[in-house]
Amino acid sequence: MKGISVAKKSYPLSKVYGLLEPGPVVLVTTAGVERPNIMTLSWHTMLEFVPPLVGCVISNRNYSFARVQATGECVINIPTVELAAQVVGCGNTSGAKRDKFAQFGLTPVPATRVAAPLIAECFANLECRVTDTRLVASYCFFVVEVVQAWINPAVKNPRTMHHLGHGHFMVAGKRIQLRSKMK
Amino acid sequence: MKGISVAKKSYPLSKVYGLLEPGPVVLVTTAGVERPNIMTLSWHTMLEFVPPLVGCVISNRNYSFARVQATGECVINIPTVELAAQVVGCGNTSGAKRDKFAQFGLTPVPATRVAAPLIAECFANLECRVTDTRLVASYCFFVVEVVQAWINPAVKNPRTMHHLGHGHFMVAGKRIQLRSKMK
Repeated sequence: MKGISVAKKSYPLSKVYGLLEPGPVVLVTTAGVERPNIMTLSWHTMLEFVPPLVGCVISNRNYSFARVQATGECVINIPTVELAAQVVGCGNTSGAKRDKFAQFGLTPVPATRVAAPLIAECFANLECRVTDTRLVASYCFFVVEVVQAWINPAVKNPRTMHHLGHGHFMVAGKRIQLRSKMK
Repeated sequence: MKGISVAKKSYPLSKVYGLLEPGPVVLVTTAGVERPNIMTLSWHTMLEFVPPLVGCVISNRNYSFARVQATGECVINIPTVELAAQVVGCGNTSGAKRDKFAQFGLTPVPATRVAAPLIAECFANLECRVTDTRLVASYCFFVVEVVQAWINPAVKNPRTMHHLGHGHFMVAGKRIQLRSKMK
């Protein structure tokens, strides 16, 4: 556990959008009353570059919904395909009555700016605070600001997972570069 | 052009989320005063399964922003990597003074429910109407409802493009399936 957390480096907030814009499945952690929880999430989008704002749908059918509302905080952890079993496991189970970190062999690491833990095994971790709840009642859509980002610099081309529905995933493929003025 | 449009079939609205959830770059078309326009977009998320609601950031630095506001409609077209040059081209140029369909060799096809055209060369096309503008002032975030979807059934494993920033893209890789209760 110590070795994994030591490997993480602070990541510039201005580069965070490049982690989420390609649309990976993420694991969202929240602080709990008895223990932290983890949920699987694919419905997210960038809303602003700097400070990085992210919109994410945390369904009120999930135990995490109440935890985000109560704490105003979460961590967005980005897994690679090596964690496929954990991604699906966290998506298939409720955290109301179980410790998902223990059940799925994931390692909680204290964050620096929020009470929710980082997942050590994920290559990137984004500590977030809720900043806008106007669309929560309509769509469970929370706007969060990334206040601290961490990256495992050893992971160069992360093989992220992208959900196609019903347990089918596309795994990140080859990279191409084109002449672009797009940020 | 006729051959391409004939190949498209109506696609169940209940399956639309599976097209956008993996996070592809999309081309958004809008109806214009003189001609339709096209913009490249990566900041989108699903908000609801049925009817399919999509949230997307259409920056007010783009010509399309005013067109979506004026018409309340757009089409979300999903390209594959064969259209990489067009994706980057549409992202690098403004539609205020040019015809992007002509410039980039794309074919407009009339939609059935909205005035904005479909792009024939994209494997999927989602006709959309704006349903919620509460977050437009803050983040240029439009909520749209997909009212009609089209698919090219000949494209089985679409090699979608996923933007990593500054013209770097990840191309959709292999597919995997896991036992999942996740929708």
